[in-house]
Amino acid sequence: MSTTLGAIVDALGGQLTGDPSTPVHRLAPLATAAEGDLAFVAHVRYLSQVHSTRAGALIVGHPLAQAAAGRGACIVADDPYHYFARLTQWWRRLHEPEALAVVHPSAVIDPSARLGVGVFVGPYAVIEANVEVGDGAVIGAHCVLGRDVRIGSQTRLAPRVTVAAGCSIGERCILHSGVVIGADGFGFAPHQGRWVKIEQLGAVHIGHDVEIGANTCVDRGALDDTVIGDGVKLDNLIQIGHNVRIGANTAMAGCVGVAGSAEIGAGCTVGGGAVVLGHLSLADGVHVSAASVVTRSIREPGQYTGMFPIDDNASWEKNAASLKQLNRLRERLKAVEQAIAQAQHKKTES
Amino acid sequence: MSTTLGAIVDALGGQLTGDPSTPVHRLAPLATAAEGDLAFVAHVRYLSQVHSTRAGALIVGHPLAQAAAGRGACIVADDPYHYFARLTQWWRRLHEPEALAVVHPSAVIDPSARLGVGVFVGPYAVIEANVEVGDGAVIGAHCVLGRDVRIGSQTRLAPRVTVAAGCSIGERCILHSGVVIGADGFGFAPHQGRWVKIEQLGAVHIGHDVEIGANTCVDRGALDDTVIGDGVKLDNLIQIGHNVRIGANTAMAGCVGVAGSAEIGAGCTVGGGAVVLGHLSLADGVHVSAASVVTRSIREPGQYTGMFPIDDNASWEKNAASLKQLNRLRERLKAVEQAIAQAQHKKTES
Amino acid sequence: MSTTLGAIVDALGGQLTGDPSTPVHRLAPLATAAEGDLAFVAHVRYLSQVHSTRAGALIVGHPLAQAAAGRGACIVADDPYHYFARLTQWWRRLHEPEALAVVHPSAVIDPSARLGVGVFVGPYAVIEANVEVGDGAVIGAHCVLGRDVRIGSQTRLAPRVTVAAGCSIGERCILHSGVVIGADGFGFAPHQGRWVKIEQLGAVHIGHDVEIGANTCVDRGALDDTVIGDGVKLDNLIQIGHNVRIGANTAMAGCVGVAGSAEIGAGCTVGGGAVVLGHLSLADGVHVSAASVVTRSIREPGQYTGMFPIDDNASWEKNAASLKQLNRLRERLKAVEQAIAQAQHKKTES
Repeated sequence: MSTTLGAIVDALGGQLTGDPSTPVHRLAPLATAAEGDLAFVAHVRYLSQVHSTRAGALIVGHPLAQAAAGRGACIVADDPYHYFARLTQWWRRLHEPEALAVVHPSAVIDPSARLGVGVFVGPYAVIEANVEVGDGAVIGAHCVLGRDVRIGSQTRLAPRVTVAAGCSIGERCILHSGVVIGADGFGFAPHQGRWVKIEQLGAVHIGHDVEIGANTCVDRGALDDTVIGDGVKLDNLIQIGHNVRIGANTAMAGCVGVAGSAEIGAGCTVGGGAVVLGHLSLADGVHVSAASVVTRSIREPGQYTGMFPIDDNASWEKNAASLKQLNRLRERLKAVEQAIAQAQHKKTES
Repeated sequence: MSTTLGAIVDALGGQLTGDPSTPVHRLAPLATAAEGDLAFVAHVRYLSQVHSTRAGALIVGHPLAQAAAGRGACIVADDPYHYFARLTQWWRRLHEPEALAVVHPSAVIDPSARLGVGVFVGPYAVIEANVEVGDGAVIGAHCVLGRDVRIGSQTRLAPRVTVAAGCSIGERCILHSGVVIGADGFGFAPHQGRWVKIEQLGAVHIGHDVEIGANTCVDRGALDDTVIGDGVKLDNLIQIGHNVRIGANTAMAGCVGVAGSAEIGAGCTVGGGAVVLGHLSLADGVHVSAASVVTRSIREPGQYTGMFPIDDNASWEKNAASLKQLNRLRERLKAVEQAIAQAQHKKTES
Repeated sequence: MSTTLGAIVDALGGQLTGDPSTPVHRLAPLATAAEGDLAFVAHVRYLSQVHSTRAGALIVGHPLAQAAAGRGACIVADDPYHYFARLTQWWRRLHEPEALAVVHPSAVIDPSARLGVGVFVGPYAVIEANVEVGDGAVIGAHCVLGRDVRIGSQTRLAPRVTVAAGCSIGERCILHSGVVIGADGFGFAPHQGRWVKIEQLGAVHIGHDVEIGANTCVDRGALDDTVIGDGVKLDNLIQIGHNVRIGANTAMAGCVGVAGSAEIGAGCTVGGGAVVLGHLSLADGVHVSAASVVTRSIREPGQYTGMFPIDDNASWEKNAASLKQLNRLRERLKAVEQAIAQAQHKKTES
């Protein structure tokens, strides 16, 4: 399962210092890398680790080229982090058997479904009427694709992904196990103390190069559709409500909740556990910190945060108690300021 | 896939102004509706949109009847939002093929299970011993019903729903993909630094007309049962702990967590991402805002909130730092007040 | 489905007061127990309930032995809560049919997979190449085990659990429905406004006696592995990011999110809905309160909290508004303090 520095540079480019036949047994983090391992140094601020690591070879940028070459074999790349990402992709193709383009005989596939060339369908997958699956797509075991679903070419569905009727997924997407695309949005009209269901007649449309983490849900729209732009990356256990729109290349960490009809711009990031309330707009380039609650539209790019600072429990209890009187404290402070102003005024008068 | 205004009014009532043969191609939101679309106006405050929308026809309440009739075809209803909800249900029945009452030959059904009349069972569903499924119920592909489970009539399980042994679901419920009913509650006795499992011997009982969103979990009780009342609506990715009881017609938005043995009243709402701690009681009609943490029982109906306000990151950092000294600030303010009181007292004396 | 006090004491020990042939029909909570039920009293502070409960018999500790014996049959145990936990386990074995050691004919099992003695495999399970399943393990319906997976002996997977290629689970573990082990971690290199995938080449290793709740996800490592220690207990809907390490016997309540590369010590507890940011370390014995966000490493054991106190909405609004000016309030208070100090200074001088 090993390769050589030379083979890597042949495949991915970069300037090699050292013997091309140097074996690479593993890609490893800088801190735990050993002889035979290849590690990368993302930034010049990790210079000290260039000297301390036991990695057999390093991937570095130009500013660290001399330091890295001074200690042993290295590959110099314009953007070492990007180079490393490409390397992991190449490494995976090298070491992992491709899914064969076979359709498991246990898969239940409606005769009206159209599968492209080189499609893999795993055991017990269910593909309903009028589904289209693009060339080279992988439909994992136990996936269920409802009628009229479209899956783009080269898209991979891990085992046990559900895509409900009428939804579409673009090309080169990755959906992990447990993902549910196109369940009903949460819509009810209150009537005489009960909730009357509003049938969710829209669908979900997902662009190209989107990745969606395990057990994440994207609900179908009520009337219009829910839309996820190209290049969006969603981590695990995220909830995307009906009619949400997410712009291209926005990324969200795990456990985020986005309520219905929120519009999130392109190039945004949302930290883990954050909540975006419904019917809000976030401009392009808005970055929401973890566990923050977006309660109003945000028109300007930038970093936004709202999170109670953690503390030892005793200190928190005292501060939290005071917080419940904060507005009263503010009024008391105002009264004090007025008393002082009055006193000074009298003094000036006298 | 179109209908007419006349057909709608024939089915659902309401007063029609305009030509009954006016075609309706789509139900659409007011803002994006075009000619041939039918939209609804929930409230008189959207009067301006009555004039600006391009919708071919409108559903309105009596206060907007004249304005709507002035611009074109309209249906006047007592409660236009409720009318619209009923319309979506009628629309779905019109356009969507009914699940046929067939049992897929791949389903594994224990001979002791009893299926009612007109039941649909999808591919690869597993139905264990002594299960009862009511008339007209839909059991989606890949569902697993443990032994002794009861599913009420007309209840619909989307593909890939798990209902564990001994749990029951009422009539006319909807459970979306990935729902897990009756996994073990989280119960352990600490013993010499380790956790000893408390087997969860209770079950889950779910009332009638309940809807449960994708990937939501309702745990079985430890000794007694977990109980979800009639008409409850749970959104996606919600966690309901063991022995929780939820009153009728309470609704919870996505990503809510309710810890064990909490008792939540009827007619409550819980906003997205909120947390209710264990062993608490919430009265009927309590409304918890999104992302708030309920740390004490709430005896009075009303709206309750606890959420750090979001801000630009730099402002948040300053305020959060001050928050960690808030109790100290309060003490300093008190000292200042005392100093002023003393000064005034001296002045009075002198 | 009933037993006797004598049979219980024969199996589990403890001192019996009363007739060994006393029937026990149910284990019940103290508050709702009736005649024929056996309940336990965890602590001497529940003395009043010893007298008020209608339970037929009680399990108590030594301090309550006399009070309990005074009212009727009882079992005295050194640690009544631990005794009760063991009792639930014994009760379950007594009443619940063991899964038979059968492999359902519909399971798709690669010929290279090795199943131990007494293994149960449910309908439609998929077991890929080179998987090893230990003796007495239970693989529920619809489970998918990727190639090279290891499942320890006596471990139980509920229906619909996914364990991806190369991951390992120890002995006597319990994984509930919807669990996803070994989906890709969330790793991307930013490049020219887009995200380039970093293939996740590590795996997940889970120790012995671990329990993982429904729909919880544990992501595979990027280069090194994600590691869950022995005796760890994870509730439902938890997200564990790539390369996280969790020490032995740590427990986490529902909806927790732990971001990538966090290291959590042994014997910790994390309350429901809490978030631990990435690359942080928590010492052994750290207890994080529900819904708190850990934003820095914690080196000392103890209880830590950060949570906005809930309040009626009107009060919250006022206090939250003041909170956004808290740093300004602090500056105003400082100014007031200086004005007073100056005034007092002048007075002293005059």
